[in-house]
Amino acid sequence: MRTRILEILGQSSKEYLSGEEISRQLSVSRTAIWKQMQTLKQAGYEIEAHPRRGYRLKNRPDLLLPYEIRDTLSTKILGQGEIYYFSEIDSTNIEAKKHANLGCPEGSIVLAETQNGGRGRLSRSWFSPTGKGIWLSVVLRPPFYPYDAPKCTLMAAVAVTKAIRNVTGVKCGIKWPNDILYQGKKVVGILTEMSAEFDAINHVIIGMGINVNIKEQEFPAELIDVATSLSVITGHDISRLTLLHAVLVELENAYEGVIQRGFSEMLDEWRELSVTLGKNVNVFGGGREFSGLAVDIDNDGALLVQTDDALEKVLAGDVSIRPQIG
Amino acid sequence: MRTRILEILGQSSKEYLSGEEISRQLSVSRTAIWKQMQTLKQAGYEIEAHPRRGYRLKNRPDLLLPYEIRDTLSTKILGQGEIYYFSEIDSTNIEAKKHANLGCPEGSIVLAETQNGGRGRLSRSWFSPTGKGIWLSVVLRPPFYPYDAPKCTLMAAVAVTKAIRNVTGVKCGIKWPNDILYQGKKVVGILTEMSAEFDAINHVIIGMGINVNIKEQEFPAELIDVATSLSVITGHDISRLTLLHAVLVELENAYEGVIQRGFSEMLDEWRELSVTLGKNVNVFGGGREFSGLAVDIDNDGALLVQTDDALEKVLAGDVSIRPQIG
Repeated sequence: MRTRILEILGQSSKEYLSGEEISRQLSVSRTAIWKQMQTLKQAGYEIEAHPRRGYRLKNRPDLLLPYEIRDTLSTKILGQGEIYYFSEIDSTNIEAKKHANLGCPEGSIVLAETQNGGRGRLSRSWFSPTGKGIWLSVVLRPPFYPYDAPKCTLMAAVAVTKAIRNVTGVKCGIKWPNDILYQGKKVVGILTEMSAEFDAINHVIIGMGINVNIKEQEFPAELIDVATSLSVITGHDISRLTLLHAVLVELENAYEGVIQRGFSEMLDEWRELSVTLGKNVNVFGGGREFSGLAVDIDNDGALLVQTDDALEKVLAGDVSIRPQIG
Repeated sequence: MRTRILEILGQSSKEYLSGEEISRQLSVSRTAIWKQMQTLKQAGYEIEAHPRRGYRLKNRPDLLLPYEIRDTLSTKILGQGEIYYFSEIDSTNIEAKKHANLGCPEGSIVLAETQNGGRGRLSRSWFSPTGKGIWLSVVLRPPFYPYDAPKCTLMAAVAVTKAIRNVTGVKCGIKWPNDILYQGKKVVGILTEMSAEFDAINHVIIGMGINVNIKEQEFPAELIDVATSLSVITGHDISRLTLLHAVLVELENAYEGVIQRGFSEMLDEWRELSVTLGKNVNVFGGGREFSGLAVDIDNDGALLVQTDDALEKVLAGDVSIRPQIG
C-alpha cells in the first residue's frame, strides 16, 4: 500500500491530495492512510499534511526503495525482475543466491541499506554503512559455458567504472581482476559467484559494494589508507538512485554486448580502464609469490605478468601494484 | 534414541537384551523403548520380542540409514560429515546445495530412499523409485580453481565405475562425460554442480543416481531401451549399503589422488574405463551437430572428436555413440 500511496502522491507532487481522495482510490480507511503517512515520514519522505487540503509529497529520501528504483529505470532485464530490498541484511550475495536457487527471474536484484556480514573476494569482510553506499547483487542467467563465467567479473568492473565516470566524472580505474580504484584507493569491490553444472551455468550473482557517500571520518582506521568514497573524491554527496540506475543500464549494455558479440570488445574496454596493465606488480596466492610487469590480460581474463624468466599467467590470488620508485 | 537402541541391540545380535536393561542404559522408560521398537519394526528391522528374555535384532533392512552407513564406513572425509537422510525428497542435489551454502562440512552427504524431482544433466528428470537405488549427493570443498571443477564429474564417474566393478563384477563403462553404461544402457547418471567465485570454489556437489535393484518391469516404458539396473544385469539383488560404502571409499581415494597428484592419473583411468573413445559419435549441442571419431579427452576433460575436416573439442552437449553397421 505504501508503494501505491507514493505513486498517487508522486503523480501530483505540486498539488495537495485529500486524505479522502487517497482513501477512496485505495479503498482503505483514512486512519489507515494516516498511519502509512507516519511510516513514510519516518522513512525519510517529506510529506506535508495540511488540515484542509490534505497531503503533498515535498521530498523523497535517498533510499533505494523498489518503487523509487522502478520509477524511471530504462533497462529491459536488470532490475525488471524481482527487487528484494532490505534495511539491513547479512549479505546481499547470500540473499541473492537463495532466490536464484529458488528460480527467481534473471535481472532480479537484492539491495540493502546496510550489510552486517558484507563480504568481498576471498572471504574478506566489506564495510557497508547504512545508507552510504550501494550494496547490490544482481542475478544473471547467462547462456555461456561455465569457463566463461569468470569473465563476468571483468564485465561488471567495466560497467560500474563507466557508470561512475558518467554520473560523477570521477576517473576511477580497474585493478585486476575487479577492484575499482581512485588514486590507489578502493571505491568499489565486486564479488562474482556462480552456480554451474558440467556444461551449463545455473546462475551468476554479481555482487558489488560501491562506496558512495561515506565520509572520510566514517571509515574504520584500518581502511583509511586503502578505501575512499565518491563523496570524498568529489566533495559532495551523490544520488545513490541516479548512480544505481546508471550501473544497471551499463551492466545491461555490457551483458547484451557480450551475449551478442562475445567477450573481446569488453576485454578491450577492460584494458582501457585498467590501472594494472603497464605497472610493476607483486603477485601473491595459489602458493606462489613473484613480481613482474603486468603486460596484458588473455582471452580467459587471466593477467599476464612478465617476470625476468617467463610470461606468467595469473588466474587467482592478490595482485598489488608496486609503488614507483625514483 | 533409535540409533542408540540399534547400537545396543547390534552389539549382541545373537542374545536377547531385556527392556529393563535397555531402558537403564538409555535412561528412558520401558514404554518409550517399546514405542521405538514398533517404529523400528515398521522401518523394516526384524526385532524379536520375547516376553521374558527381551529384545533381539534378527535382521536389518536394506535402508540407507545414517547409523547403518556410519557403522562400518572406513573413509576419512566422505560420509564423515553430516548425513542428511530422507525417506522422500525432491532432489538430493537441491538439498545438498542448501546445506553447502549454509556451511556444512566437506564430506557431508544427502541420501533419500526416493526422489520426486530427481534431475540429471541438462535439467532432465531422473527416475528414482523407493529403495531401489542409491540417490546420493556428496558435498566437496576442493582446493582447485573453478576451471578444474568440471573434471570432478569425470572423477566421480571413474570412482563409481570402479566401485560397481568391485562390488558386483559388472563390467560397466563410462560414456563421456559421466554416464555409466552397461551394453549401451544407463546404470548410473551423475550431476555435478559447483558454486564458485572468480578464483575459488565454494563447493562442488556430486549427485548420482545408481540403479541398483530396479526390476526390468519397474522401469517406465520410455526408459526400458535406455536404462537398466545392477540387479537386472546380475540376476540378483545387490546390497545398497555395501555398494554405497564402496562408492564413498573409491570417491575419496580418487579425490585424494587428484588433490595430491593432480588430474592426469585420474584422466588416464577415465580413458581406460571409457566406452566412448575409439567409437564413432554424433555430437549435438551448443548450436552444433556433427559426427566423427572420438579419439581422446584433453587435460580439461573435453572430448576430442576427429571429423573429416578437423579435430573438434567438445566441451558441452550430448554425445551419442553411433551403432556399428556391417
